[in-house]
Amino acid sequence: MSSSDIFIGETIGTAVLILLGCGVVAGVVLKQSKAFEAGWVAITLGWGFAVLTGAYISAPLSGAHLNPAVTIGLAIEGGVEWNKVPIYFLGQMLGAVIGASLVWLAYLGHFHAHLTDREIVGGPGAQDTVAADRQQQATGAGPVLGVFSTGPEIRNVGQNLATEIIATAVLVLAILTQGLNGDGKGLGVIGVMITAFVVVGIGLSLGGPTGYAINPARDLGPRIAHALLPLPNKGGSDWGYAWIPVVGPLIGGAIAGGIYEIAFA
Amino acid sequence: MSSSDIFIGETIGTAVLILLGCGVVAGVVLKQSKAFEAGWVAITLGWGFAVLTGAYISAPLSGAHLNPAVTIGLAIEGGVEWNKVPIYFLGQMLGAVIGASLVWLAYLGHFHAHLTDREIVGGPGAQDTVAADRQQQATGAGPVLGVFSTGPEIRNVGQNLATEIIATAVLVLAILTQGLNGDGKGLGVIGVMITAFVVVGIGLSLGGPTGYAINPARDLGPRIAHALLPLPNKGGSDWGYAWIPVVGPLIGGAIAGGIYEIAFA
Amino acid sequence: MSSSDIFIGETIGTAVLILLGCGVVAGVVLKQSKAFEAGWVAITLGWGFAVLTGAYISAPLSGAHLNPAVTIGLAIEGGVEWNKVPIYFLGQMLGAVIGASLVWLAYLGHFHAHLTDREIVGGPGAQDTVAADRQQQATGAGPVLGVFSTGPEIRNVGQNLATEIIATAVLVLAILTQGLNGDGKGLGVIGVMITAFVVVGIGLSLGGPTGYAINPARDLGPRIAHALLPLPNKGGSDWGYAWIPVVGPLIGGAIAGGIYEIAFA
Amino acid sequence: MSSSDIFIGETIGTAVLILLGCGVVAGVVLKQSKAFEAGWVAITLGWGFAVLTGAYISAPLSGAHLNPAVTIGLAIEGGVEWNKVPIYFLGQMLGAVIGASLVWLAYLGHFHAHLTDREIVGGPGAQDTVAADRQQQATGAGPVLGVFSTGPEIRNVGQNLATEIIATAVLVLAILTQGLNGDGKGLGVIGVMITAFVVVGIGLSLGGPTGYAINPARDLGPRIAHALLPLPNKGGSDWGYAWIPVVGPLIGGAIAGGIYEIAFA
Repeated sequence: MSSSDIFIGETIGTAVLILLGCGVVAGVVLKQSKAFEAGWVAITLGWGFAVLTGAYISAPLSGAHLNPAVTIGLAIEGGVEWNKVPIYFLGQMLGAVIGASLVWLAYLGHFHAHLTDREIVGGPGAQDTVAADRQQQATGAGPVLGVFSTGPEIRNVGQNLATEIIATAVLVLAILTQGLNGDGKGLGVIGVMITAFVVVGIGLSLGGPTGYAINPARDLGPRIAHALLPLPNKGGSDWGYAWIPVVGPLIGGAIAGGIYEIAFA
Repeated sequence: MSSSDIFIGETIGTAVLILLGCGVVAGVVLKQSKAFEAGWVAITLGWGFAVLTGAYISAPLSGAHLNPAVTIGLAIEGGVEWNKVPIYFLGQMLGAVIGASLVWLAYLGHFHAHLTDREIVGGPGAQDTVAADRQQQATGAGPVLGVFSTGPEIRNVGQNLATEIIATAVLVLAILTQGLNGDGKGLGVIGVMITAFVVVGIGLSLGGPTGYAINPARDLGPRIAHALLPLPNKGGSDWGYAWIPVVGPLIGGAIAGGIYEIAFA
Repeated sequence: MSSSDIFIGETIGTAVLILLGCGVVAGVVLKQSKAFEAGWVAITLGWGFAVLTGAYISAPLSGAHLNPAVTIGLAIEGGVEWNKVPIYFLGQMLGAVIGASLVWLAYLGHFHAHLTDREIVGGPGAQDTVAADRQQQATGAGPVLGVFSTGPEIRNVGQNLATEIIATAVLVLAILTQGLNGDGKGLGVIGVMITAFVVVGIGLSLGGPTGYAINPARDLGPRIAHALLPLPNKGGSDWGYAWIPVVGPLIGGAIAGGIYEIAFA
Repeated sequence: MSSSDIFIGETIGTAVLILLGCGVVAGVVLKQSKAFEAGWVAITLGWGFAVLTGAYISAPLSGAHLNPAVTIGLAIEGGVEWNKVPIYFLGQMLGAVIGASLVWLAYLGHFHAHLTDREIVGGPGAQDTVAADRQQQATGAGPVLGVFSTGPEIRNVGQNLATEIIATAVLVLAILTQGLNGDGKGLGVIGVMITAFVVVGIGLSLGGPTGYAINPARDLGPRIAHALLPLPNKGGSDWGYAWIPVVGPLIGGAIAGGIYEIAFA
């Protein structure tokens, strides 16, 4: 694959992944959406089919990594040259910011309705961070940040890192074994479907504690978009947590690459 | 493919698509249905498997477009001759009207029970359009129109167009890349399954604001059926909105064709 | 295929279909089940994967009809010799009775708990059929019959027949086009998956009015089992309705065979 | 396959199966999880995609049994040499304990929050086993054991055994017929998807009474982990029931092997 195909493929594919992925969260949490309160099954299916759509579109161009943790795992395993890794990363980050911006566009009226509804916007009474944090959860700004980026239900660095590492290692290990499953080189169409269901499964099973970033670009790109896009009363972008869904998945992807090298290669 | 195969395939396939697609909305919103209030996951799965069934049946005859936006995208990309485009459109529109009429037949008793139930039919008190609009939502006529055609939760021309354009571009881009995904010529059986899950994903992720027409025939055909079929207290067919789910998807399909030509061809 | 393979395959396959299909209804409606009130999506997915499992197991032996309406459609289309049709029917009916009996065995404690719970069993006050019918719905006997056989929400011969005819025609048309979809002779593994999702789609979209028998054996076999098996307070087996889910699907299958012959052959 | 590949494949595959399988139960029952109360469809999809992920990863190494009942069925049918059976069993049990321990790690904060929340932990008033049992269901310890191992809704040895035997026989019969379904030797990628949907179907349809262990390692391994892992107020591991989800599935697997030999071979 040429570097330009990789860059274009990863940009388009990750944009579609994030558009549909963050889109399902917007649909479920924003008021006046037809998908309002459609539940966790809706969110996990939505993210799974977001992966399916983004991967299907980008597979012919770039092999459909769409995730720096996948790129790292494949680089360790030998399926990607290390000098291509930065091109993958750039496309993934750019695509993630574009995808999140398209969610903003597709749900613009709903974001505004949600954030300016007096009943759900927090008052000015919150005075310390704990109270502010709780208030943010109950009001409009918390769910809006949740459309873009992940956040833990119980905030604890070691615990949150562990969950992201474990969940990402499962994802990357499944992707690495595709080459052994008779599906030919690259990501075949059956492999795309399998990966989508694996992502649904990881979301259902390991998404409970942290919201399963399992992909640094999936979390960081939309968080940057959240910080930059104009939205009334949007609140902070929770940068204190931002490194965990970047570092955890990268460690998980590297662990999967190591397990693969030892057990399968 | 011969013109008659295209016309017959698109008519049958779109009829099945609309029968199952509008059927799931009927099942979920009409009182006394076993599927009553089955939720947004039911609706999006129902539309996805409607695409799967209609596409599987019509693929051998017409290649299973079932959607003018798909036909436009393929014509721009070169996969369909421009002089066949009107045949596709005619079959799609005829099939959509037939499909919506079959929903009317399959749920006839339920439509009547729903529309003549005094508890849910609005009284004559509504005096201006805003109040009438709200009342229609709460009473039987609004959901019944919703069985046939889409409508926005927040009515805003630019916003609604943008959402339909974005959602349709994703759909058509996924369909255009099928030829690159090693699935052979035309729409293979794996491609049918992938497309169905893409449609479920788009519904979950981008259906919240407008109900994801993403297909001019899917919206206009059933709207014509709604206007023509005898139903008591059915109310208006909301013709003021009718152009948006026609124009938006056509623009989205054309954009996808353009992106494909630039990035993939 | 030999006649004995056909008979054995249809018996085993239909038994599995009915075991899992009626099983999901038992799980959702019987008290003290972990699946209690899991909803319509659970029921339709359960029936779809029941078809998938029964068809996958029986495809190598009998081609996995599991449904007299499918056999009729295939006989009209020419895919099955008419002299084999009675063998298919016998296996399907025997399998359906066996499958329903296995549901009875797997949920025996739950049937007893459900039917002997004083709170949900109707008192002796019901004096006319309408009141008795309503009471049966609210008490334990109605849901228990619903585990075995289908029943309409709005009882109307013409309406109920129409719904079953339409829904079955879609199913059989999808199965008839499998041979054209490049999936080889008989029912390939992809065809099994497609058919399962078609059945989920039909359930979601057209199951609301009558509970989508779409298969004479699926309704009549379990109804016979309901009449024969020992269950306390089980009530009647609603034989007055029993002919509709037999005749309707047979007409629907024949119509699909006719459409196929005209449009596809 | 070499013995070491079998052992490593079964250990890794079963660990992934149990991590995602028990993980979805943790997500749905533990307080403060994003998946809290996501329902029975979430649990059955979660277990199905757990099978998909574990089987996909381990298929190239060990053929992905991940279940002693499957190994027994294949040994009877002749697909596995009897002297390899203990190696399969060892890997499956080791993997199950590892997988359950990873669930403990991924949800550690949630287990602690759940078990030490005064509102949901039972007081010291329970004085006999029946009352203690009921209280355990209502408080935190019962759901926590349910994350690891299965338990019946109505406790009855014969009934519970029958349900597990029937459900496992369906699973193993479906797996045994894979070789006949043109999917080549071993477990192909389509076979992995089919098996996952079969498991979703069995869960929806036959999981209601006992929680569908259908796999001795799936129940016994996590029960051992529950007994060994440090968790506050965790209560007993219900060893009195532990033999049923071991013996029932082994009988079911053997019955399926016998049916296969008689009807299919």
